Order: sequence, then C-alpha cells, then structure tokens
Amino acid sequence: MSNLKTGGGKRIFMQEVCPRDGLQNEAVFVPTAEKIALVNRLSQCGFAKVEVTSFTSPKAIPALSDAEEVMKGIRRTEGVEYSVLVPNMRGAERAMACQIDEANLVMSASESHNFTNLRMGREASFNQLSQVIAEIKGSEVAINVSLSAAFGCPFEGDVPENSVMNFIDRFASLGVRGITLCDTTGMAYPTQVASLCQKVKKYFPELETTLHFHDTRGLALANTLAALSEGIDRFDASTGGLGGCPYAPGASGNVCTEDMVHMLTLMGYETQVDLPRLMGISRGLASLIGHEVHGSVVRAGKRDDLHVMPESLEQNFNACRQAREQV
Amino acid sequence: MSNLKTGGGKRIFMQEVCPRDGLQNEAVFVPTAEKIALVNRLSQCGFAKVEVTSFTSPKAIPALSDAEEVMKGIRRTEGVEYSVLVPNMRGAERAMACQIDEANLVMSASESHNFTNLRMGREASFNQLSQVIAEIKGSEVAINVSLSAAFGCPFEGDVPENSVMNFIDRFASLGVRGITLCDTTGMAYPTQVASLCQKVKKYFPELETTLHFHDTRGLALANTLAALSEGIDRFDASTGGLGGCPYAPGASGNVCTEDMVHMLTLMGYETQVDLPRLMGISRGLASLIGHEVHGSVVRAGKRDDLHVMPESLEQNFNACRQAREQV
Repeated sequence: MSNLKTGGGKRIFMQEVCPRDGLQNEAVFVPTAEKIALVNRLSQCGFAKVEVTSFTSPKAIPALSDAEEVMKGIRRTEGVEYSVLVPNMRGAERAMACQIDEANLVMSASESHNFTNLRMGREASFNQLSQVIAEIKGSEVAINVSLSAAFGCPFEGDVPENSVMNFIDRFASLGVRGITLCDTTGMAYPTQVASLCQKVKKYFPELETTLHFHDTRGLALANTLAALSEGIDRFDASTGGLGGCPYAPGASGNVCTEDMVHMLTLMGYETQVDLPRLMGISRGLASLIGHEVHGSVVRAGKRDDLHVMPESLEQNFNACRQAREQV
Repeated sequence: MSNLKTGGGKRIFMQEVCPRDGLQNEAVFVPTAEKIALVNRLSQCGFAKVEVTSFTSPKAIPALSDAEEVMKGIRRTEGVEYSVLVPNMRGAERAMACQIDEANLVMSASESHNFTNLRMGREASFNQLSQVIAEIKGSEVAINVSLSAAFGCPFEGDVPENSVMNFIDRFASLGVRGITLCDTTGMAYPTQVASLCQKVKKYFPELETTLHFHDTRGLALANTLAALSEGIDRFDASTGGLGGCPYAPGASGNVCTEDMVHMLTLMGYETQVDLPRLMGISRGLASLIGHEVHGSVVRAGKRDDLHVMPESLEQNFNACRQAREQV
C-alpha cells in the first residue's frame, strides 16, 4: 500500500491531450493561430508529451482539418514530445511530413465500438495499423497504440481482459514503443484498473504504458490511484477536462489535467507540471471554445489557496486568542 | 493492496446526510411534509444511518427550523439508525424529546474554523460538548462526534494530525461511540487520508469511525479508496451531492451518495444500498430545491446502462459478423 502512503517524489509523466482529444469534440473550429498558441503555452507547463492534433480525414473531423498548419506552426520546447493521432496510411504520410515525435495509432478493444468509431472490424483495423507501423518503423518517430474501450464498451458492456491483453501482445510483437489503455466512455473502476495494470506491467514490463481515463462517472482520479498502486507512471489528461462523451451529453469527458496534477502533487509525486500556469491556461479555454469547462481545482482553488475570516469575527478571534495567551 | 484488488463482499456502512447536511445549505425552505417524505424514501434504500435534521437554533439555520416536526413525523424503518445534529445543551434537550437513535455533536479541529462556524474557541466547544455527552450518556441514544476541518482549514491550511488525534482521544475518553472525520471544505488528499485513518484504526480500534468527504476539489472518491485501504467501512454521503461549500460558490460539496455506491458496488463491496431506487430519489431533488444537483452517475447512467449502436451501422456490423462466421 506504499503508493497510498506517499508518492515519495516518484516521477509521473503527464501527457496533455487537450489540443487533440479535447478540441476534436468541440462544435466550434478554433482558429489555427489559437491552436498553435494553446500548444505553445502548454509546452511551457512541464508536460512530458503533448498530443497536438489528428491526421484524420478533414471530412471526418473538421475541427482538426488544419493538422499540417498546426504541427508546422508550433514552437517546440526541449524535453516535450509532440504526438499526433494517426488513423491510417494516408494519415501516416501526412504526419511524417510534419516532424512529429510520436504517432499515436488507435483502434478499439471492443468489436462493436471499433465498428461504430472506425467503420470496420477489429481485425481490419489491426491489419491497417500493422501497415502503418511497418511504414513508420525504422524512422525516428516513436509509435504508440491507443486501445479504446479497454475497460468497457458502451454497446457490449464488459470487454474481456484477455481481449485487451491479446491486442497488447500483438502490437508489442510489432515493436511499438507504447500502449495506451483508454477508458473511452468512463466505464473503468478501480479494482478492474488495478487488475489490468498489474497484468500489463507483469507481461510487458518494457512497454511504455499510459492510462487514459475519462471522468464520465466521477471515477477518473480513483482509477488513477489504482493505476499508481500498480506502478503506472504515465497518464493522459486534458486541461479543463476538455473532450466530452458522445454517449452522455453534458457528462464530464477526459480527466482534468489540473485536477490530476493537484492530487499527484499533494500526494508527493513529481509531475514537473507548473500547476498555477496550467490553471491560467484552463481559465482561458472557455473563451476559446464558447462554453465553461469542467475542472474542480480551477473552480474551488488549490488546497493551499486559503480564505480570510470575516473581519468582524477576526477581531473577536484575535481578542480571545490574546486573552488566552495572557492566562 | 488487497482492497484495490477486490472489495471481496466486505460490508460498507453508508450513512445518508442529505436531509441535514444537504438541505441546511439550501436557500429555499423545503416544506416539512416534503422533508418527511424524503427521509421516508431514503429509509427504503438500505442505508445504515440517515441524518435527519439539526437541532440548531432556528435563527441560525432557518432551513431546518422544523426539526421536531420532521423527527416526529418520519416513518422508521427497521435496521436504519436515525441521527440528528446536536450543537449544544438546548439542542440536546430538544433532540432527546424526539426519540433519536444517535446524537451527532460537532466541533472543528481547527481553532479559526471553529470560531467562524461556532463563534467560540475549541476548548469552549469541547467543554460544551462534554456537558452534552454527560447529559446523554446512560440513555439509549448513541453519541457521535463530527470533527470538522480534520484534513485542513480554509483559513489556517494544514491542521496538525496530532491536534485531530488529541481531540479523538479526549472524546473517546468520554465514552462516545463514534467519531466522524470531516473534510468540511474538501482539502483532504489520499496520502493524508491513509495516514490519519491508519492512526485512528491503530489507536482507537473500538471507535466507530466514519469518513465524511467533500468533493470540492474532485478528490472525494480517491480519498474514499485511501480510507478503504486502511480498513474504514463507514462513510457519510449526500444524495445528489447536496450541500455546497460556502468558501467556493458553485463548487461541489458533499460527495454524492449514488456515485460512491456505484463505485463501491463495482469494486465488489456490499453497501446494501438499492442504487436504482436512490438514483430515482436523486432525480427528484432538483424540483425540491429549485436547482440541478451534482452527481455523475445520474447524469451519465450507471456503467451497465448500455447504449444501442446507430441502426445503419448495426446492419453493416451484423452483416460483417455473419460473413466472418461463414468463413
């Protein structure tokens, strides 16, 4: 239980996904210059990785149709990896022309979710991604695979742990650097997270393993604790909790970066993220996207943002305190 | 780490505080008959305890000025304890005339928070509560003491663990049955919770220990995990997350009962709470108090509330599946 006793200064790698996973869910098209400015500001916060954009078909995701301009326009910060979502060969070609650090491929661990999201079965997706991996491998670009619905499918319910482990195994065999276990619609719960993370760490200790939680049912930070308890040290998160859930309108989406950093820092983990700076960025998001964002710490203040006592009380209080000291 | 692996059917005692801690923060006066109906409905949900009302001065908390009528009007359900908040001797006299099962006394672990909330220093509060305890002891009414600001004070910041342990010790010496550690303004974090709970369980194993979390900074369910990991089996929670935080307008208040029960049930704990029934009550709260309530599970649905695939996709999907089966 040591991880619940103290983080002990352990380094946790925070990966910011707001510019891609957040903005792709927004109805408004955020102007290219503002996207670039957002990535540049996030680059100054201490993240290990920033997911910048998606090289999906502009027809499929119009909100990110400016992937090339954004990727070519950002100012790179040393120590930050710039990742992009790559859905297929066409996307890989486009992305590879933009000096990306990492290609983040995606498919679902659930057959019906993969079909709904990507319009093909899982085997077809695996074959397609295998070709992309073959194309990219040997370059300097790292490869990550995000497995959607790894903790449950909104259509099928439970997704067998073995299915998830099987896809991890097959992608690991193809030599990818990392796997992200995505709780795409917020169905993960702590005991389940601990169980899957333990298996992944045991059988694939060399894989860079990321956990990607959604807060749809309020469990994202509890699930983070469960993952930490199994030695996971890498988390996706979205500033302002940007990125909703299509199956639950109005529900929270991605776990909020500043809330996660706030918790990890209090627990004694070392995220290297500048929380006040990040909170400033979060406060600016509403004007960018036209609606309020989720995020408890921005709303309530950090734990150490103290309040002043009502003035009338404070005078009484000080008088009482003095009287006591004189006794 | 066993508690993060499985709840293993362990019984967790859920204590519902919405009628008292929730309603006392509301601007509207909920009619007495509706309060009684709410308590009666909650009584059917499987809670171990329901905090019904507060015998505070009606001037201080007008929202609960009907404490006698409510307490005398409810229909008692076997197996449910009915608790009320008792601030002082006058409140104790009023409460004892109403067949309460438990008197919940309250003071703060922080000097300035106690002064702000109760208009006196901690020693004055302790003396007052000692008299109340002396008055009630020997009757069949159980005594619980809720220590506010046990995980931090909105004015002072950190509250030394030793201060909290010291007050627990003094109240335990007076023979109270239980102590509630209250995170009144949402300042608790998991490592801190684990540390304090471990000490309380170690030095006061005989005390009925309740954890009372607020979700002000999104940490309530993560803190619940930390408490579970130290053997805590008793939690306060408020349906719909009712009960705000005066220092953070708009922020979440009490942890939401249905969200907590949803998590605990998924983890394999036995709460005996009827979640669908409780969610029905939560959905009715908005009309009672005139505004939306917090609560992720009511908004997003339970994990096992599945969705149907879009019809056009489903036909394709079934055709693909059939074709594969025929190969």
